[in-house]
Amino acid sequence: MPVVDLTIVVPIAGLAAIAAAAYLSWRVLQLPEGDEMMRRIASRIQEGARAFMRRQYTTIAVIALVVAVIFAGAIGVFRGLEEGMRTAIAFGLGATASAASGYIGMHIAIRANSRTANDGLTSFGRALKTALRGGAVSGLTIIGFSLLGVWGIYEIYNLWFGGPTAAEQQSVILSIVGFGFGASLVALFAQLGGGIFTKAADVGSDLVGKIEAGIPEDDPRNAAVIADLVGDNVGDCAGRGADLFESTAAENIGAMILGVGVYAVAVAAGWPNPENWIFFPLVVRAFGLLATIVATFFVRGREDEDAMQMLNRGYWATTILSALGLLVVTSVMMDTGGTLGAQGIPAWLWFWGAGLVGLGTSIVFVYLTQYYTSGTYRPVKDIALASRTGPATNIIAGVAVGFETTVVTAITIGVALLLSHWLGEQAHLTNAAGRDVGGLFGTAVATMGMLMTTAFILAEDTFGPITDNAGGIAEFSRSEAGARRITDRLDAVGNTTKALTKGYAIASAGLAAFLLFSAYIDKVNLVLARQGRELMESVNLAKVDVFVAALLAAMLVYFFSSLAIRAVGRAAQSIILEVRRQFREHPGIMDYSERPDYARVVDITTRAALKEMVAPGLVAVITPIAVGIILGHEAVAGLLMVGTIAGVLLATVLNNGGGAWDNAKKYIEAGHLVDDDGAVIGKKTPAHAAAVVGDTVGDPFKDTAGPSLHVLVKLLATITLVLAPLFIR
Amino acid sequence: MPVVDLTIVVPIAGLAAIAAAAYLSWRVLQLPEGDEMMRRIASRIQEGARAFMRRQYTTIAVIALVVAVIFAGAIGVFRGLEEGMRTAIAFGLGATASAASGYIGMHIAIRANSRTANDGLTSFGRALKTALRGGAVSGLTIIGFSLLGVWGIYEIYNLWFGGPTAAEQQSVILSIVGFGFGASLVALFAQLGGGIFTKAADVGSDLVGKIEAGIPEDDPRNAAVIADLVGDNVGDCAGRGADLFESTAAENIGAMILGVGVYAVAVAAGWPNPENWIFFPLVVRAFGLLATIVATFFVRGREDEDAMQMLNRGYWATTILSALGLLVVTSVMMDTGGTLGAQGIPAWLWFWGAGLVGLGTSIVFVYLTQYYTSGTYRPVKDIALASRTGPATNIIAGVAVGFETTVVTAITIGVALLLSHWLGEQAHLTNAAGRDVGGLFGTAVATMGMLMTTAFILAEDTFGPITDNAGGIAEFSRSEAGARRITDRLDAVGNTTKALTKGYAIASAGLAAFLLFSAYIDKVNLVLARQGRELMESVNLAKVDVFVAALLAAMLVYFFSSLAIRAVGRAAQSIILEVRRQFREHPGIMDYSERPDYARVVDITTRAALKEMVAPGLVAVITPIAVGIILGHEAVAGLLMVGTIAGVLLATVLNNGGGAWDNAKKYIEAGHLVDDDGAVIGKKTPAHAAAVVGDTVGDPFKDTAGPSLHVLVKLLATITLVLAPLFIR
Repeated sequence: MPVVDLTIVVPIAGLAAIAAAAYLSWRVLQLPEGDEMMRRIASRIQEGARAFMRRQYTTIAVIALVVAVIFAGAIGVFRGLEEGMRTAIAFGLGATASAASGYIGMHIAIRANSRTANDGLTSFGRALKTALRGGAVSGLTIIGFSLLGVWGIYEIYNLWFGGPTAAEQQSVILSIVGFGFGASLVALFAQLGGGIFTKAADVGSDLVGKIEAGIPEDDPRNAAVIADLVGDNVGDCAGRGADLFESTAAENIGAMILGVGVYAVAVAAGWPNPENWIFFPLVVRAFGLLATIVATFFVRGREDEDAMQMLNRGYWATTILSALGLLVVTSVMMDTGGTLGAQGIPAWLWFWGAGLVGLGTSIVFVYLTQYYTSGTYRPVKDIALASRTGPATNIIAGVAVGFETTVVTAITIGVALLLSHWLGEQAHLTNAAGRDVGGLFGTAVATMGMLMTTAFILAEDTFGPITDNAGGIAEFSRSEAGARRITDRLDAVGNTTKALTKGYAIASAGLAAFLLFSAYIDKVNLVLARQGRELMESVNLAKVDVFVAALLAAMLVYFFSSLAIRAVGRAAQSIILEVRRQFREHPGIMDYSERPDYARVVDITTRAALKEMVAPGLVAVITPIAVGIILGHEAVAGLLMVGTIAGVLLATVLNNGGGAWDNAKKYIEAGHLVDDDGAVIGKKTPAHAAAVVGDTVGDPFKDTAGPSLHVLVKLLATITLVLAPLFIR
Repeated sequence: MPVVDLTIVVPIAGLAAIAAAAYLSWRVLQLPEGDEMMRRIASRIQEGARAFMRRQYTTIAVIALVVAVIFAGAIGVFRGLEEGMRTAIAFGLGATASAASGYIGMHIAIRANSRTANDGLTSFGRALKTALRGGAVSGLTIIGFSLLGVWGIYEIYNLWFGGPTAAEQQSVILSIVGFGFGASLVALFAQLGGGIFTKAADVGSDLVGKIEAGIPEDDPRNAAVIADLVGDNVGDCAGRGADLFESTAAENIGAMILGVGVYAVAVAAGWPNPENWIFFPLVVRAFGLLATIVATFFVRGREDEDAMQMLNRGYWATTILSALGLLVVTSVMMDTGGTLGAQGIPAWLWFWGAGLVGLGTSIVFVYLTQYYTSGTYRPVKDIALASRTGPATNIIAGVAVGFETTVVTAITIGVALLLSHWLGEQAHLTNAAGRDVGGLFGTAVATMGMLMTTAFILAEDTFGPITDNAGGIAEFSRSEAGARRITDRLDAVGNTTKALTKGYAIASAGLAAFLLFSAYIDKVNLVLARQGRELMESVNLAKVDVFVAALLAAMLVYFFSSLAIRAVGRAAQSIILEVRRQFREHPGIMDYSERPDYARVVDITTRAALKEMVAPGLVAVITPIAVGIILGHEAVAGLLMVGTIAGVLLATVLNNGGGAWDNAKKYIEAGHLVDDDGAVIGKKTPAHAAAVVGDTVGDPFKDTAGPSLHVLVKLLATITLVLAPLFIR
């Protein structure tokens, strides 16, 4: 045993996160809910969100059960009943944990919203604190559950059929991939369903309310307004929560698989505590979680301070504490028995460098997203300027900006991969076959470094729908102007934090891609080795079947996005028809003498969203399986890799393009756009109308298709990993 | 010598094409040019087009010279002076031939336009014939030149330093790759410059004329109208001509390189006339050219017939004659000395099958493009319907359609590749190392089969700008309504044929990708073998540098498109400012008492387009070189392959999305859209305005960025092929 056994930190950090979340929930729930009107709206939002989540999870549970049975059966036939069972159990646990953590996070968020609105009546600082605490509940719960889940299932499976050899360890960890796949599947449908719901409600309510009826956003006369507020929670909060639950789980498992490679080296070389290399990814995340808890409790805002500044301070605190934690973990756990890496520098220092690359990548993405989607920089200004010549030039400018943002995304991810791989190589870890295993492990360390701050990022993300809802509640309950002004300030920050989470989610998917590829190749080779066949040494794009699979992968990304975007359009159409019907049949709604039937719109949106999520979801699940069965295991690897590239970049285009359109509209509304003579072009001008068109176009891009693509990319990885034995020909 | 030496057909067909083009030119030029007014406008268009082409080619010549000197120098340093010289000479010839054929084609097109308009005064049939003949001049000249160019340089280099061994033949053909690269470079700038010119003029003239001043399209009071008409010629005609000149040249050379692989097998096995395998691609194209000449001269339209039907008949005639020609060529040239392929079927029959796959792919794309972009089918109708709820839903629907079209593109190309590869494998051609060479050669035969109809497709394409111009001339000279009606009918067909050519160009790029990859790998291995090093056996995406290069390739495609789209916006802005100035300073323009200064707008557009084409052009040239030098030869292969996939699919999205938006607008203008009560929603309704927004957004997508991406994809192939020695590490 080592001097200090850091693995104990894993359950401690997981439980501490849950305890902290419980404490914050208790504090938030103690706050007053506001006046009668606010309480009534909040309870309608809660009802709607719960109704949607109940029906959505029922649908997902049915799909998950069918998938689990089919997959377990298929794996059972190919690889024996026991392996089928193991995969099915892990799958069920992953799916359940993901669903539960999403639900709990949302549960608090939909209670924090009215309390934030109520705080906004008196104090900006208090409102900010309430919203951030509500968000932190979500972040801590989700990441805590994800960490405990991966740790727990590893420990159980290790007891069940683990053993000290590298092959046995590999087998245990490959079995828990099912956990990641369960989480992916839930995340896919949660993000698709939630994303379609939120944007159908948003677009539908805007088109029929703001544009057709000429009433303000969130006006209580619009029957779709509650659906719109519910949408913020189920899309941004529960959807993104499931997305990042899955990221952290799957990437953690991928890193552990690479850790087994180093474990084998450590065992062969007789280094102390070789199992540390497997536990390392879990411990790193545990320290990241502790850093987040500390930052959440100790970073405070000042009344006169910009909210974004305060959040950035919290983010920096988390990052710096994480960097220190990483130093502790690498120095204690990475014991190479005195052998040194390049330049006589110990291996752990090289890996600490790789981890810092990951933390650095996260910082780059946080600020890049702010540059591309915030109103103070060139991209958004360009779009606002282009709005002066109408909607066509606004759209063209937005598309050009969206396309352009791929440059920094690709270069940052590329540099991070090359650099962390190079740093890992410098550690000089060589396996029995004489091959370097440190390079790949370097990319794993970088990914884990990046994921250390996930809980904080997720807290910021959930902050978005809470403040968005608080603003809606303030408007809806016709609170005093002061409250609305405070919630507006918070809402603007919430938009940025939501955009930022998406950038972070993409970058982590890009960085993690490599872990998951290697895990796939390891798993295929495990099966090939058992069959006594030649191993897969490369994923050779020059083979016609691999190339065709890659072509199909890039196509899948477009097709999936097309289906998701179209789904929003169709669901919005059914909302528009219903709201129009209510206006027509109940003319009293317009003069407040009749109350619109909000629940009916929520119900219609729910049904439409659940119906529409099926087609893109099935395409995402079936395509890799079909390609694998028809074209074989090497082709699937090509599909996985090129699908990741295409998915990461298209998601970048959709998220950033959408965010920039949104903020170009806000830029004009804030009165920053001027004509050639210097006169302000503000609200209700043709330029503003053009910017509203861009904003509406961007909605399904940035909140439905883009975030669903993150999940698609990771689903491709987990599904091929779980089903690899079926593809071997 | 064989019983029949078919290689003689190559120069005969090339010269026959030039002769036929000369005859058709003579016939077209004999036709009356129309009245004083028509002649005057036509001469203004000619002046403008010539001025642009002169300045564009001067700029391109300077760039090409610089590139030639640098590349020849670099290759000279790395591989000896002689190889540097050979590459430079081939490069110069390719660049010159491409430029010359584009110029000649356009020279006739800008003379056929007023003659078509004049014919339109009296007869639809005559107008159609004139436009098609004008187009055929372009198609026959370009493909004739391309064939003669590749044949000529091969013959010269073969005399210069060729020899009977496979290695010597390989060296000859790899040297003529410079010809393809020269053609690519000219095509890149011709398509970018022409594409920016045409769409800047189109968008600028529409925004300032139709929208701001409220005057019709092509109205003589709009100072940008001549620039718009010039743009059709320099973009659609000269630009696409350079694109397909390059496709046929580069893909022909790629196929010859694969032919050398079979040549080696044939020599070793002692089959008769082994050199036939190298000449085969040239002879196939020669037969395709003959088929096109026959179809052009013998297919006639009937007065009452739909023009598209007549063109489709000509296309089918070309295709059927090509299939028969292919049967002759494969049966005569592919002599395997009596050895048989799978199932006891001779090798040539299997390859004939592969060639038919290519012809079939071309048919599929021709009809698919019609489905996706023509008003009678679901996609365009969906967009028109979505226009009823405003520009935002129109844009969302169009993007969804554009994304969706990648499905059939990817599946068709994928199936064609797998099928032709499989058919080639059945020929059972195995090289000395025991590896199959027939599969790859099967994809080469499919590509050559597909390219057989290029001259006809190109004739149809040039038909587009001629009829577009004829319509403009009729409107501009305020001809009687009858003439405008006839030119309108022709113009609608021209839109479809232009869309179709783009589909064809993409499919051929996708299909040819494989030839060019293999050629690249061959060239790298040639160098590695000379250095006595291990050969590159695979392009392994699982290596971090290859993966990062692939990521950068997908990014390059977006970045390049972003620059091209933005360039159009900026150039259009300068046109708008100039036309506004003319309206302001010369108020007499509006009541026809003053004449706008058309030449000045042409001049401004020319300067803007030439300035704006530099940035995307340089990005396209520099990125592959930089990646190659930094990450090495295997990474560049990854860049090439994933760049091809990403480029083909994004071009599909941009071209088809743009085409569908255009036709959704036309669908509404034709009065096909109705509201819920069945009343027609036609011109000047909000739905029509929404559709105009979509059409304007689609313009730079489908006519600048999309077509430039075709060229980018092929440039990546030729540039990496030429510079391969520099990337080896």
